Amino acid sequence: MSSDQVQTKLKKAAWEYCFSVDVWKDRFPFTRWLPKYRPNKILNDIIAGLTVGLTVLPQALAYANIAKLPLVYGLYSAFVGSFMYCIFGMSKDITVGPTAIMSLLVADYGKPLDDGSEDALNDPTYAVLLAFFCGIIQIGMGILHLGFVTNYISSVVISGFTSASALTIGFGQIKNILGIRFHSEVFTLDLYNIFKHIGETKWADCTLGICCIVTLVALRMVKNKSQNSLNQLNSSSPWQRRVIWKTLWIIGTGRNAIVVIIASGVVYALISNDYDGYITITGNVTSGLPPFQLPDFQAPGILTYLRVGLIIVPLIGFLENIAIAKGFARQNGYRVESNQELIALGFCNMGGSFVSSYPTTGSFSRSAINSQSSVASPLGGLVTGSLVLLALAFLTPAFYYIPKAALAAVIIFSVFFMLDYQIVGHLWKIRKWELLTLIATFFPSLHLGVEYGTMIGIGVDLLMLLFPVAKPSYKVEQGNPLVIRFKQGLRYPAADRLQTVLDEEALLIDEPKSVILDMKHINAIDFSIAEELQDSAKAFEKAGKKLAVVNARSSVKKILDRTDIKSLPIYESVEVATERISATRPAPSPAEMEAFDTPL
Amino acid sequence: MSSDQVQTKLKKAAWEYCFSVDVWKDRFPFTRWLPKYRPNKILNDIIAGLTVGLTVLPQALAYANIAKLPLVYGLYSAFVGSFMYCIFGMSKDITVGPTAIMSLLVADYGKPLDDGSEDALNDPTYAVLLAFFCGIIQIGMGILHLGFVTNYISSVVISGFTSASALTIGFGQIKNILGIRFHSEVFTLDLYNIFKHIGETKWADCTLGICCIVTLVALRMVKNKSQNSLNQLNSSSPWQRRVIWKTLWIIGTGRNAIVVIIASGVVYALISNDYDGYITITGNVTSGLPPFQLPDFQAPGILTYLRVGLIIVPLIGFLENIAIAKGFARQNGYRVESNQELIALGFCNMGGSFVSSYPTTGSFSRSAINSQSSVASPLGGLVTGSLVLLALAFLTPAFYYIPKAALAAVIIFSVFFMLDYQIVGHLWKIRKWELLTLIATFFPSLHLGVEYGTMIGIGVDLLMLLFPVAKPSYKVEQGNPLVIRFKQGLRYPAADRLQTVLDEEALLIDEPKSVILDMKHINAIDFSIAEELQDSAKAFEKAGKKLAVVNARSSVKKILDRTDIKSLPIYESVEVATERISATRPAPSPAEMEAFDTPL
Repeated sequence: MSSDQVQTKLKKAAWEYCFSVDVWKDRFPFTRWLPKYRPNKILNDIIAGLTVGLTVLPQALAYANIAKLPLVYGLYSAFVGSFMYCIFGMSKDITVGPTAIMSLLVADYGKPLDDGSEDALNDPTYAVLLAFFCGIIQIGMGILHLGFVTNYISSVVISGFTSASALTIGFGQIKNILGIRFHSEVFTLDLYNIFKHIGETKWADCTLGICCIVTLVALRMVKNKSQNSLNQLNSSSPWQRRVIWKTLWIIGTGRNAIVVIIASGVVYALISNDYDGYITITGNVTSGLPPFQLPDFQAPGILTYLRVGLIIVPLIGFLENIAIAKGFARQNGYRVESNQELIALGFCNMGGSFVSSYPTTGSFSRSAINSQSSVASPLGGLVTGSLVLLALAFLTPAFYYIPKAALAAVIIFSVFFMLDYQIVGHLWKIRKWELLTLIATFFPSLHLGVEYGTMIGIGVDLLMLLFPVAKPSYKVEQGNPLVIRFKQGLRYPAADRLQTVLDEEALLIDEPKSVILDMKHINAIDFSIAEELQDSAKAFEKAGKKLAVVNARSSVKKILDRTDIKSLPIYESVEVATERISATRPAPSPAEMEAFDTPL
Repeated sequence: MSSDQVQTKLKKAAWEYCFSVDVWKDRFPFTRWLPKYRPNKILNDIIAGLTVGLTVLPQALAYANIAKLPLVYGLYSAFVGSFMYCIFGMSKDITVGPTAIMSLLVADYGKPLDDGSEDALNDPTYAVLLAFFCGIIQIGMGILHLGFVTNYISSVVISGFTSASALTIGFGQIKNILGIRFHSEVFTLDLYNIFKHIGETKWADCTLGICCIVTLVALRMVKNKSQNSLNQLNSSSPWQRRVIWKTLWIIGTGRNAIVVIIASGVVYALISNDYDGYITITGNVTSGLPPFQLPDFQAPGILTYLRVGLIIVPLIGFLENIAIAKGFARQNGYRVESNQELIALGFCNMGGSFVSSYPTTGSFSRSAINSQSSVASPLGGLVTGSLVLLALAFLTPAFYYIPKAALAAVIIFSVFFMLDYQIVGHLWKIRKWELLTLIATFFPSLHLGVEYGTMIGIGVDLLMLLFPVAKPSYKVEQGNPLVIRFKQGLRYPAADRLQTVLDEEALLIDEPKSVILDMKHINAIDFSIAEELQDSAKAFEKAGKKLAVVNARSSVKKILDRTDIKSLPIYESVEVATERISATRPAPSPAEMEAFDTPL
């Protein structure tokens, strides 16, 4: 088949691909599940949607706090994701919205608001811009089928940065429990500042915070108990017991909302009785729905503030989302596809940025609640999103009374379960080397921020994975010319090794020798190796010796031919090469030249 | 041999290693070359040292400008490297000091000085701290033999970031040639600002700048001509001609100094005749030697300002240095060793930080001059360093008159030769894929800064290199149970692939099947793969099916045994596994359970 024919075929295939109904249906998964939707499932979806909604309201306010944004931005970020994911998502269980880790990342790529307030809030403009670019990048990656890049983040790195995030987020909230104020960005500084300011603790805040945590622990135990009982009850048990257990389960699941409502009630009662100022409260929250508008692309220094966040935030967001989606897909027996999930998440973020959302992703805790509530389709998300919109429209005045310590308790309690200390024991038992990856991720994350910790962890993982690529083993067959045979591939990380081997075995020894490089085992080479061979061939020529290649496979030979190295002949076999090299009268070496020169 | 015996042997070997004279001599290379030093070479070293010194003086002042530091810091950085490298370095040709690329990087990790001056200078405290930490990190990497990490930076990425640096640095100086003022960090903003402010051009500055560039071009042509002539002349030609050509060569080599001196002379004459203010000049330069003191470790927010610079600066510095060292080592027939070069460079930087130096490395242009001047040993560096000290002690008052346009001309002219446009053609011819790496390095470097461009380029390179690791090919042998056989290694990037294959081939199909995973071709697995197998085994068990492993090599079996996966049996062969799996009565699958449940 001629190259023209191939091109015509390829074009036709691409054309057919772009206009195939199936391909477009894959892009809009709702076209597959909606027609099959059974109306009797609608109650499941409504109950699940409401349960998730009860969780997302307090979480959204609390997470906005982590993201260093005005609390209402948490709610702005909590509804578009649900709507968009309905159209583009493949998993019925996933609920997209603000999460603890995304909020932590967003806090790092902001510009401090210079409004003279005591709180170290960031300018939301940049967080919204980050959501927009994050969306664009995720959609682009999905279209280009780049979902696989997150495969290079090993589960050890994920565990390390998750634990470090949990510690950073949790300790970042201790000050709100204690009612003290200071500004610090990373875990280590937080720890230092907590001890420094511990004398300023406000006892009312502290008492309230501890009460909230205790209540949360108790309600969680209720939920676990009811969960177990619900599992044991079969459909034949009396409906009263079923109702009791179900009610307890809902109370346990809605614990965040319950704690926040009770704590706010206490504060409201105190303030109504003129006991004002004892407990640090949220204060005024902007009322009403967010405006529908483009992000502010005119904001100064966008790139200065967002920088590496433009890479990290879309990636980590996708990583969280796909891990959750694949987990629930297995559990509930359906399929998700990485690149479509990227596109879905991208639309959630881009769409969100038009209503002042900051970057969001799938939330593990809320998706679990969704799944446990037997959600039947992504339609549950519509209910959740609508509940958030209603809260924005009517509930904001009540948010005034929410105590900061209660929100802090919600955060601390929810990130506590993100701490994965068991992995240390597992790694110790299974493969100790990888503890190095964990350490290289965890500790830098605490001190430099999770984004740098993650990058360092990935770096260490890759170094361990690639070590053999940089140090391919080789064998030397003594003689003149020397025959050097590399045992594995020669790709760019091995360029330095190649040079060192040639130098140490043949070129920089007392009497330089010619070398035959046997490429029998080499699958592929690249530009760096070709360039290195060119340099080496020149160096051999200068020393009056020869460098030759033998047994090159066609892929290797093609690259060498294109590089067109004058002084690097390619022969079929070691024998031919030995014969030719011995036959050519070598040019005088510099040493001989000098010997010639001296008498004059 | 028992494990105890091995340990004893290892300890003994380590002990001997630490106390062997040879090992310590390798750490202080001057102990090898100094005893063999022939006094008749001293003239070579002095001439080379002076020639390099003439180049480093104007370059140091100009590069400090790139680094956004007061000009005198260029000189502070230009002498300790020469002294330290004398002790620890292996290459006679290398001269360590400020370079264009290091200066560009240093500019990015500073804290703006709030001294109300018009120039956007950074606080030198942080640059000096960066030098200190850069030194410590380089020494540490050298001791731990981590010199190989730079092997993962391919020559394509190096070419991309070098060209982008050259463009950024060059365009960053255009404003000084035009005599206009604005503040911008990256190439794209510079370009924008130049066009915006072009109307404010000061013609005196511009004329002077262009004159300087023309003179530099002319002097370089003189040098090349004299170089060729010198090469053609043999020792029998009349000494007059030799002297003429050699003089021309020195004039050409010292062109930077000549241009700066003449330009300063013109300014001095103008100012003496009351034509003040026409040409933008350097102004007051702190006089005298720098104080010998520890860097200021009490400076606030060290990590905030230095952050990723702590990784990038030591690495790029070493990369520049080792590339130059290996190049000259080949050319002049001696050896260098990566890890010793790291240690040498580390001491240059750490030592430098005690006299207010910013991070330095080997300079290509000055090393080339050193080599062309037939330097015989690192002693030439002592001469260069002393010349810089003398300049600091006595010449600083003269620096007042140096026109900024002249320094800008020196920079623009020297970075021009760093532009590597030819690589585009080479890559197009040799291996088009790698153009992607070049693009991914070059353009982000221009807009986000070279450090991010370099990281993106390395990322793209690694993705292309590791693509087969993430997508190992496999073969399915139909039947019940299915036999799945991966053809290459299974390491963490393949964990996702493994899950997808199991899901799509066996678990999430209409009738789930048991699977036998044939590990015949698998060399090694890691924690992520073991964890994935554990998850998969659980999922198979839940579906009432079996997942089993056969033909595991000992290294793979060891990790699986340690992971201790209850529901993942390991059998010797496919036959045994088939038999056992068929024998066990499978637990009812969820589908069957549901069928059972419905009638009730």
